[in-house]
Amino acid sequence: MSDNNEFQKVTETASVTAFQQNPYGPNPADYLSNVQNFQLIDSTLREGEQFANSFFTTEKKIEIAKALDEFGVDYIELTSPVASEQSRKDCEAICQLGLNAKILTHIRCHMDDAKVAVETGVDGVDVVIGTSKFLRQYSHGKDMNYIAKSAIEVIEFVKSKGIEIRFSSEDSFRSDLVDLLNIYKTVSKIGVNRVGIADTVGCANPRQVYELVRTLKSVVSCDIECHFHNDTGCAIANAYTALEGGARLIDVCVLGIGERNGITPLGGLMARMIVAAPDYVKSKYKLHKLRDLENLVADSVEVNIPFNNPITGFCAFTHKAGIHAKAILANPSTYEILNPQDFGLTRYIHFANRLTGWNAIKSRVDQLNLHLTDEQVKEVTNKIKKLGDIRPLNIDDVDSIIKDYHIEVSTPSIAPQRDSPEVDSNIDINSDGPPLKKAKTAAK
Amino acid sequence: MSDNNEFQKVTETASVTAFQQNPYGPNPADYLSNVQNFQLIDSTLREGEQFANSFFTTEKKIEIAKALDEFGVDYIELTSPVASEQSRKDCEAICQLGLNAKILTHIRCHMDDAKVAVETGVDGVDVVIGTSKFLRQYSHGKDMNYIAKSAIEVIEFVKSKGIEIRFSSEDSFRSDLVDLLNIYKTVSKIGVNRVGIADTVGCANPRQVYELVRTLKSVVSCDIECHFHNDTGCAIANAYTALEGGARLIDVCVLGIGERNGITPLGGLMARMIVAAPDYVKSKYKLHKLRDLENLVADSVEVNIPFNNPITGFCAFTHKAGIHAKAILANPSTYEILNPQDFGLTRYIHFANRLTGWNAIKSRVDQLNLHLTDEQVKEVTNKIKKLGDIRPLNIDDVDSIIKDYHIEVSTPSIAPQRDSPEVDSNIDINSDGPPLKKAKTAAK
Repeated sequence: MSDNNEFQKVTETASVTAFQQNPYGPNPADYLSNVQNFQLIDSTLREGEQFANSFFTTEKKIEIAKALDEFGVDYIELTSPVASEQSRKDCEAICQLGLNAKILTHIRCHMDDAKVAVETGVDGVDVVIGTSKFLRQYSHGKDMNYIAKSAIEVIEFVKSKGIEIRFSSEDSFRSDLVDLLNIYKTVSKIGVNRVGIADTVGCANPRQVYELVRTLKSVVSCDIECHFHNDTGCAIANAYTALEGGARLIDVCVLGIGERNGITPLGGLMARMIVAAPDYVKSKYKLHKLRDLENLVADSVEVNIPFNNPITGFCAFTHKAGIHAKAILANPSTYEILNPQDFGLTRYIHFANRLTGWNAIKSRVDQLNLHLTDEQVKEVTNKIKKLGDIRPLNIDDVDSIIKDYHIEVSTPSIAPQRDSPEVDSNIDINSDGPPLKKAKTAAK
Repeated sequence: MSDNNEFQKVTETASVTAFQQNPYGPNPADYLSNVQNFQLIDSTLREGEQFANSFFTTEKKIEIAKALDEFGVDYIELTSPVASEQSRKDCEAICQLGLNAKILTHIRCHMDDAKVAVETGVDGVDVVIGTSKFLRQYSHGKDMNYIAKSAIEVIEFVKSKGIEIRFSSEDSFRSDLVDLLNIYKTVSKIGVNRVGIADTVGCANPRQVYELVRTLKSVVSCDIECHFHNDTGCAIANAYTALEGGARLIDVCVLGIGERNGITPLGGLMARMIVAAPDYVKSKYKLHKLRDLENLVADSVEVNIPFNNPITGFCAFTHKAGIHAKAILANPSTYEILNPQDFGLTRYIHFANRLTGWNAIKSRVDQLNLHLTDEQVKEVTNKIKKLGDIRPLNIDDVDSIIKDYHIEVSTPSIAPQRDSPEVDSNIDINSDGPPLKKAKTAAK
């Protein structure tokens, strides 16, 4: 032992209350936080239609809109009715479904678009205009004074129709801060329902988002909505820090589909938010419908659910290393921040591999209703690891090794086997192949 | 117009210098930031081996290690040599390859493991022990005093062998802060090379990460390494904020493979970091090798590259909506924060759909070497949008409509066609199917 041991011995105190207070919940210092009071604007039928593979028929749009409504999103945003003739008809059709979710459409900041939008029957109009120097120079070619003038005209027109209006800048994080605050203050004063910040190119980072939202919150009196692209992988985190800073609404798409690699995914944001605001999320959204909703959209746009998708990826609740499996068997919270049951899913202990440990194997031995001492389980675990060094294992390989070993050690007689072994229904021990895609392997 | 128009007219000033200063680069207020001075510890052959589908043969491990080395990762972390007999042999084999990257192995905080690890030929040992109450209760059952004692013993032993040593807590974000700082201070004083923070369950959020790293940085004198699981979708953002707060090293895996849905992906982190530190990233890592590296690992573990993967997802550089296509054609920076050429990739303008715009179609008309006025292009764009309302379009549909229209308007004679139309090689106009998986469609 070292003379340098300056570690100060401390008394272990039980602090159960600390766990009950949810240490990964909202930061108490964020007094403007909407982490426990947020709303979702689903844009699968607008931003998502801009995804490379998307072609939604009217019937498919209605099916998706109904599924989103059942899940419980607060708003559904639709493609501009001026994008094409059918886009306008689809917008009208969805407005007539009588959904609980409010229906929005998304238009350029232009009276021509606004006049068409307000006639579709939508509950609100989302207006957007590029404010960065990039977009002002290469997209619409207008200066900030022109933008302000158009914005005021469109906002007052939409308000006169008695429906909601949101004004958003585009490419907000590459826009001049003074320009932004100036125009947001203006539109807030004339009474927009929401102002929007959009990370159109996916360049923003979380602390930058927090600062901009906090600053904007001090300038406007309306709600703040945020839209984050995922080019640099921060769309979920940026949404979370935006809520911490005082934003109220987040734009999401199912699976995040949208331009390029898309925006904040609905499922991924649910994973983030259920950790921070479990009661709010579980009471408001039908989390058991997430998997079906994702499958519906994935099939429509002909993509696979990513293997590493939060919550519904095939291995999101699969535990493999021996040390993990041991702890999960004792208490799932050790290596899980999400509870698969909240989403109608199950966890899996992947024990048929060379990284397995004797606790996982002991659990399998119990499932098989065999009787081995801890020392015997350790010995059979070594046999399993040896075969696992040579080739990938499946569940039958492991069961054979265990059963052969059991026969060997339990001569002259084998312990009686029940027809229905006791399996902890909360833990599904499994090994071969993608668990969500295969039938449950019954203990033999 | 409104009387409420309080928008303050401002003079448009050219601020070219602001763009040159990279506004989405490191925050100047982060004086401890390592955003422009970070290192990568690739754990595809350790954490990645804990991915549900992984079974790496010795040959495959060597192939992956060499590819990681060519990409330029600073460290390669391998599975513990005590996990299985072959794991130990593989570790020895990779140490003998003579790679530029330093080779690490990852062990429990236990002398039995340490004694085996130091004999394999590794350049360093990564020691980990669970410090949260969850893991202390359900995994190893030891208190903080025991942990400190074991840590000191293992660290001094590894140091005596003249190789690098890292001490990491596990589940750091659910550990008691005083316990954590206490043990980190202790191991820093006895001279570890790095201390590690691990978000083992994927619960941490970016600002929480920043705070913990900043605090830890004031307590230790060594480098800080961070390891983030992706259960709640924040692994890339957490890595970035950790660097902002003063961490130096980030654990990554190719495609993020690991326990459950994995950790910070190498490619996604490169997307994030090239935005913040373009010169550093481009000079240090062979970004053109990213796609091959990801394909190698994806094939090995039998998964597809996620459709929405940063950089290499099939649509990461595909632009669809008319308004986006218009601006991209004028200047790609309008809707791209990443330059596909930095990764040896190409961008695509998806113009064969109902959301298309006349600027995108005009570009296609030019590629076909046809001659139409802007008014004519707008008219033919409407025809394309009408067909796009009825069914998905491919490039031939659009070309047929354009050519038919061109014949119609240019009677009596058709403009001469060249054999090799002039195509801007920087922009690949394309429409049907995943661009990365199909042959380039030649302009006809």
